[in-house]
Amino acid sequence: MVEGGKSVLELLNSDFEIVTVVALDEFLQEHGERIPSGTEVINASAGDLKGLGEFQSNDAGLAVARVKPNKTLGIEENEFALVLDDIRDPGNLGTIIRTADWFGISKVIASNESADFYNTKVLNASMGSFTRVKIYYTDLITYLGETDKPLFGTFLKGESVHECNFGSGGLIVIGNEAQGISSEVERFVTKRITIPGFGKAESLNAAIATGIVLDNLRRRRS
Amino acid sequence: MVEGGKSVLELLNSDFEIVTVVALDEFLQEHGERIPSGTEVINASAGDLKGLGEFQSNDAGLAVARVKPNKTLGIEENEFALVLDDIRDPGNLGTIIRTADWFGISKVIASNESADFYNTKVLNASMGSFTRVKIYYTDLITYLGETDKPLFGTFLKGESVHECNFGSGGLIVIGNEAQGISSEVERFVTKRITIPGFGKAESLNAAIATGIVLDNLRRRRS
Repeated sequence: MVEGGKSVLELLNSDFEIVTVVALDEFLQEHGERIPSGTEVINASAGDLKGLGEFQSNDAGLAVARVKPNKTLGIEENEFALVLDDIRDPGNLGTIIRTADWFGISKVIASNESADFYNTKVLNASMGSFTRVKIYYTDLITYLGETDKPLFGTFLKGESVHECNFGSGGLIVIGNEAQGISSEVERFVTKRITIPGFGKAESLNAAIATGIVLDNLRRRRS
Repeated sequence: MVEGGKSVLELLNSDFEIVTVVALDEFLQEHGERIPSGTEVINASAGDLKGLGEFQSNDAGLAVARVKPNKTLGIEENEFALVLDDIRDPGNLGTIIRTADWFGISKVIASNESADFYNTKVLNASMGSFTRVKIYYTDLITYLGETDKPLFGTFLKGESVHECNFGSGGLIVIGNEAQGISSEVERFVTKRITIPGFGKAESLNAAIATGIVLDNLRRRRS
């Protein structure tokens, strides 16, 4: 289920199969023709929408779509993808999806213990990017054991992300919010990188680190 | 109120006046000597801690301290500080405080409409950085009208943050989560900067943008 005009419109523009749209009169009048035939459409009040969803206020609508099957993602030779080593917080996962989309990264490999992509908080925080970024949940150790792609990981000690040569493609692993990259996954890391710090904070939030690494990757590659 | 061993220890290391510590036996045995005399100390169970706070689990303790008075912050000639133009989400504010601390930025000027620094969600998301980063809430328009410092702001169109010359000091304004930088604040911006995007996301989360701007600032200045 996604909430709010922006996310519902993104869903209508995507290849997701939409089951139900619940929306205000105004939204249905303006966008009704974009709703595929066969979709259940329910006219609702703003109060109904608030009661159904997580938003404090929703002056547009919400929609229910079918989840996609969990399918492996082929990563091209010159492509970068994210690997999530137990991102547990739904808000963090949604923000990481949105950030990946900003930087043109459309594939995410997630450990089975990571937050559920279809959690409403994840979808909301992704701000519609869930329609463009694909995720594949798997056993990371098995997955990483079978790939020969470079694996970049952020640690407190490593090469500065400002100087890192990312090459033409590979996987960027993002560690768990509390533990960072697990020792089992660390074994597969081929390049250790560091975001230089200048203060006394012990670490950065996982989504912030993702944004900074991807910005440097795009800067170094463009 | 702050929760969890890390935040309580950061508080004990800070100049905040602590009123009460509620903690498990183990925490009090290990760290009790660091609690100032005169502080109310309450021995509690993990269940008590969970009931009192926001954490799903807390195997250490929590502490209550006095808020500091809202005082203006002098910004040095060669210093950078953040300006928050209505950051409403407590999690975002806490993450911005943590990120500022990582990059050695210790002063934040916030609009009166921004989230409350002393909200438990802000303090928790800051991961202890609330003890090192000072905040001053004020009417931004009046404040900006009285300063002659450079004001950097992120927009969809502007100079690439990869090329920006930040000079030796100034203010970096972070816009509201939904509306970005308001037109009233935009009038004071002296340098418009852009984080180059490569995908289809419309924008970045405010805290992510903060992290990327500060990383580029430190890279360009070091």
